[in-house]
Amino acid sequence: MKYIFIVLLSTILANAQVKTDDLNLMPWPQSISVTNGTFALTKNFKVNITGNPNPRIFARTTQFLGRLDGRTGLFFNQGFVTKINEFPSAQLQINCTQSGKIGINEDESYQLEIKSDKIIINATSDLGAMHALETVLQLLQNNSNSYYFPTVSISDFPRFTWRGLMIDAARHFQPIDVIKRNLDAMAAMKMNVFHWHLTDDQGWRIELKNHPKLIQLASDGNYYTQEEIKNIVKYADERGILVVPEIDVPGHASAILTAYPEVGSKLNPDKNTYAIERNSGIFTPTLDPSNPKTYQLLSEIFDEVCPLFSGNYFHIGGDENEGKDWDSNPKIQEFKKKNKLETNHELQTYFTMQLIPMLKKHNKTLMGWEEIRTKNLSKDAIIHSWKGTNEGVPTDQSLTNTIKEGYKTVLSNGYYIDLMLPVESHYLNDPMPKNTILTAEEKARILGGEAPMWSELVTPTTIDSRIWPRTAAIAERFWSDEKVTDMASLRKRMNAVSLQLEELGITHIRNKEVLLRNISNNQTNTALEDFSNICEPLKLYTRNSEGTEYKTYSPFTLFADACTADAKNALVFNEAVNNYMKNKNSENQILVTDYLKKWINVNTKLVELSSNAPLIQPLLPLSKSLSDLSQQLLLKIEKKQTVNPTAVKDLLEKCNSKNHADVELAVYNSLKKLVSAE
Amino acid sequence: MKYIFIVLLSTILANAQVKTDDLNLMPWPQSISVTNGTFALTKNFKVNITGNPNPRIFARTTQFLGRLDGRTGLFFNQGFVTKINEFPSAQLQINCTQSGKIGINEDESYQLEIKSDKIIINATSDLGAMHALETVLQLLQNNSNSYYFPTVSISDFPRFTWRGLMIDAARHFQPIDVIKRNLDAMAAMKMNVFHWHLTDDQGWRIELKNHPKLIQLASDGNYYTQEEIKNIVKYADERGILVVPEIDVPGHASAILTAYPEVGSKLNPDKNTYAIERNSGIFTPTLDPSNPKTYQLLSEIFDEVCPLFSGNYFHIGGDENEGKDWDSNPKIQEFKKKNKLETNHELQTYFTMQLIPMLKKHNKTLMGWEEIRTKNLSKDAIIHSWKGTNEGVPTDQSLTNTIKEGYKTVLSNGYYIDLMLPVESHYLNDPMPKNTILTAEEKARILGGEAPMWSELVTPTTIDSRIWPRTAAIAERFWSDEKVTDMASLRKRMNAVSLQLEELGITHIRNKEVLLRNISNNQTNTALEDFSNICEPLKLYTRNSEGTEYKTYSPFTLFADACTADAKNALVFNEAVNNYMKNKNSENQILVTDYLKKWINVNTKLVELSSNAPLIQPLLPLSKSLSDLSQQLLLKIEKKQTVNPTAVKDLLEKCNSKNHADVELAVYNSLKKLVSAE
Repeated sequence: MKYIFIVLLSTILANAQVKTDDLNLMPWPQSISVTNGTFALTKNFKVNITGNPNPRIFARTTQFLGRLDGRTGLFFNQGFVTKINEFPSAQLQINCTQSGKIGINEDESYQLEIKSDKIIINATSDLGAMHALETVLQLLQNNSNSYYFPTVSISDFPRFTWRGLMIDAARHFQPIDVIKRNLDAMAAMKMNVFHWHLTDDQGWRIELKNHPKLIQLASDGNYYTQEEIKNIVKYADERGILVVPEIDVPGHASAILTAYPEVGSKLNPDKNTYAIERNSGIFTPTLDPSNPKTYQLLSEIFDEVCPLFSGNYFHIGGDENEGKDWDSNPKIQEFKKKNKLETNHELQTYFTMQLIPMLKKHNKTLMGWEEIRTKNLSKDAIIHSWKGTNEGVPTDQSLTNTIKEGYKTVLSNGYYIDLMLPVESHYLNDPMPKNTILTAEEKARILGGEAPMWSELVTPTTIDSRIWPRTAAIAERFWSDEKVTDMASLRKRMNAVSLQLEELGITHIRNKEVLLRNISNNQTNTALEDFSNICEPLKLYTRNSEGTEYKTYSPFTLFADACTADAKNALVFNEAVNNYMKNKNSENQILVTDYLKKWINVNTKLVELSSNAPLIQPLLPLSKSLSDLSQQLLLKIEKKQTVNPTAVKDLLEKCNSKNHADVELAVYNSLKKLVSAE
Repeated sequence: MKYIFIVLLSTILANAQVKTDDLNLMPWPQSISVTNGTFALTKNFKVNITGNPNPRIFARTTQFLGRLDGRTGLFFNQGFVTKINEFPSAQLQINCTQSGKIGINEDESYQLEIKSDKIIINATSDLGAMHALETVLQLLQNNSNSYYFPTVSISDFPRFTWRGLMIDAARHFQPIDVIKRNLDAMAAMKMNVFHWHLTDDQGWRIELKNHPKLIQLASDGNYYTQEEIKNIVKYADERGILVVPEIDVPGHASAILTAYPEVGSKLNPDKNTYAIERNSGIFTPTLDPSNPKTYQLLSEIFDEVCPLFSGNYFHIGGDENEGKDWDSNPKIQEFKKKNKLETNHELQTYFTMQLIPMLKKHNKTLMGWEEIRTKNLSKDAIIHSWKGTNEGVPTDQSLTNTIKEGYKTVLSNGYYIDLMLPVESHYLNDPMPKNTILTAEEKARILGGEAPMWSELVTPTTIDSRIWPRTAAIAERFWSDEKVTDMASLRKRMNAVSLQLEELGITHIRNKEVLLRNISNNQTNTALEDFSNICEPLKLYTRNSEGTEYKTYSPFTLFADACTADAKNALVFNEAVNNYMKNKNSENQILVTDYLKKWINVNTKLVELSSNAPLIQPLLPLSKSLSDLSQQLLLKIEKKQTVNPTAVKDLLEKCNSKNHADVELAVYNSLKKLVSAE
């Protein structure tokens, strides 16, 4: 056996003392104490399960063994965990009192005790035990030739019960394997709600056997079959995750109305009235709330969709209905009058109220974006709070109003990961409003939060790089204590977790390489990668101006798609500049000037590459500006030369341009500091 | 519009003259003439389809547009192709006379004419037209700021009608997305048969609703649902690919017998007699051919499986039954006597003959591995020829005997891509025997060939790197003229195609990086990658000695898994050494010595990395031997010093070791040349 020497070596106990701060745990546990000892991992490592857990724990523990074995290459003797008390003498003992129920407000706590010869996980249910297994995986340490765990005692539970990720599978369809790998990553980050945005103007993505027109006419052939939906619900269940489907009505209805124009709000709609939308934005197609056929159709749809999902929540969207087609349709105006509905908001409330019994029939509680909020709604409904300063609403206002009115709520404002904002903005955004005094009851109505991944600008190739690793930070915000807010610690741990996500199939790192190879026309060079590490895609909604620059079928294989938020070398450079500004010693100076020199070289190389790579051309103006400014800054910093302030200012502004390749230089602010420095 | 300048530039016609040899077409077309001109690609590029093709052409052409747009970033105005004669004035015109039928012996030919203002594809059916679209994609050229096609005239058709890839989804389950991306890659290489090995000792992978025990007891939960099977058959159909399912009987039966021990050949089997196999090799569990229940079960299985596949071929395996359990079971011996079956081969033939009507009922022709061959079999059967020198059978003998006996055949001997052999061995292996005189009729019985991807040592993460790019070379062997055998041309074109396969989701390049990151414990360094580029996994069946070193659940995340056949820098080094041996000028010398210096450095870096990466430890002995030998060779080559011949010979032998990390140094032969050189 070739691997025997590893086994032998690893039994020689590592004498490393691990400090709490060294651990790359994420989300950070509620309570942890590290002692001076280690548990040595060998190929004889085994797991045993006792108690009364849900059988889902067996597959998860088997996966745990496989992941640990894959990381360490130890060739564990145990390959599967299949039943209770299979290996009573196993080193890792898991005990669960009861079977976990998928949903909210379940006990997800766990205790994890690692001693030098034993690992003990105690949890009320398998839900907590599965969280504990993820913690164990994150605790793995190594020296030069062995793997071990530090001896620790952890007691852990979530701060919020709703820790969600939403994936928009409508604007760009996301195949089953994208959903599965993201469910795995969610479980690794102890998230427990997957909100599946299944319909929108750009497509209807769920098979309805009694209404085949929906997929025939409104999906472009990209949809989930009912079996696939059930398969995903089961896959999520096995990972302790609740699936909340969303059928977005009455707005965002271009797709459904392409199949069923007769329930649209335009006057006398026919089969040419509506079409699948190819652009992004807010569109007018809206269901007709005055038409009984609308409710007939929705009722039939819910009757078919509800049983596919085992959870008790159903999201009906309800957002961004501007009511334009309602205003222009006299029949709908008449209906409003007849029913004494003064505003379109009241009309939409009327509409929403019709849906409640349709869902109740299937034991589903209605959830919707905050536009559905109204005093008449049942207090069972969950209001999904999403508006904030971008929408002209003061931070926390919508959330606070919601809970004050007695509704339960989930916060998404501040967690829009599609906007390409820095992780800090999401991480420091607490679901619990800071400047409002709330009663305990009101606080309890804040179920948690959810990161929405809208898919206007992502494909299956790029979506992971928009979700991860920033969503790991959001997951920590939902799980950990509110005082866990140190950015340096977050960044360190997030980097470690980011790499571990690859083990679950997340493609955020590997697919960047694929995009860069295409952009460089397969020319081998690090310049393009170097440049990508200081550029970020345009933020908020500025990349897709008017929502028409990119159609749903446009290429998302461009430089902006390869770049991510939190450009990694920009973070390093920014820190280097901050240190240099504080203390201009030669050590600090070199860290800055090395980057400046690198960027001059990057530009030279990019120009070379561009002679055989048209997709590099759009980057050159920005790269040249950076190179030119770097040259000036080097003269100033290294040669202590006086540089022409107007010329430098001009170059600096060029470095702030957002007109090239849909990216911006993430080092602009630091460059500005260097320009302004004495 | 930020991209408008690309559009403008690309209308300025590239004046590049493209030579035929510059084109990276694969498989190489039967006839091609390149003229002096170009077709400029702009965002106004559109496609139009006329004639009577199968509607599958629409989705394929839409995908073609997306791929071309993704490569070029041109933002084509046309996003979809949905019906006949949609854009009559489009630049690319496709005309098909008739609807293509998925199967063998169909007309797959096409004519492609690219003029400076028009591209015309004429094909009998959409099958040929889809091949033409792949050719167009491979013809794409660029200069610094625009994309274009050379003006060409191509007439093309396949040499063999059966151009297959087999994927073993039994030993390691391969999820749907693995199958789909490989079907896409097959289509890109103009392959038309996907042979799906669905059952084996290590697992039963296909849901049977009437026999749920098969997946409940014999799949570890890893199987395809019937809907998924149908989905894949449709996906393959849309790409012109026939799916041939394989249910392997009567041997390779551990899984089926785990569910149904009562039809096993062991005496008085019960539920503990059989278990899912975790090792690799040839095992004894075999169906009982004397038991009527065996045929009852198989008949019921075929009744359920056959309708899921639209094609007319069904593979029943039949290989590697050594009959040990038949010999040791007196009841089976008695049955043999009673039925005058003298050998186990005759007994197996008896068994096989019972299956023919079960399949015929569903209009399926039986296919099986060559062990099923016997003079009594219907001549309709297809004999799958796989034995060769590895199995002690002279090359071509089994194939030649088969066709001489009147059977149709498909050749797999020589195409076993799981064996990690160099591409040359597969590429120069012609399905048509060279040393036997065959009649035209006999030749016609050679339908083609098939590359088998057995999955003992691959997971979904690594399988692509075993299939691709070598299967592209095999695809060329099956499609192109027999005279197309130039290795230098093959390598050049294969490299280009290999990178293009990424666009279809093939992960052979990107997942190597993932494995290396895990091995290096996420330490950034190129040394590990450099070393992987001169190492190859152990070949044939030597990696998994006794078939028990690796279980199905063992880690396949090791250095050997990151390495591939045809180690890329080894090829470059070997060529450098060959040139140096011919002419020891300083230019040739530097090319060699630069590598030697690199490897000394690689070893130093690997030692450094290993201090924090246990998985690097197993590589160090080999890396040290290479470094030590490189030092000696540098002394000899650069310093013209006399080196100790015994010491050097000893180092050389260490470089030939196969005892480290399951890899071998692919530069050994070249090192030997340098050692022996005067």
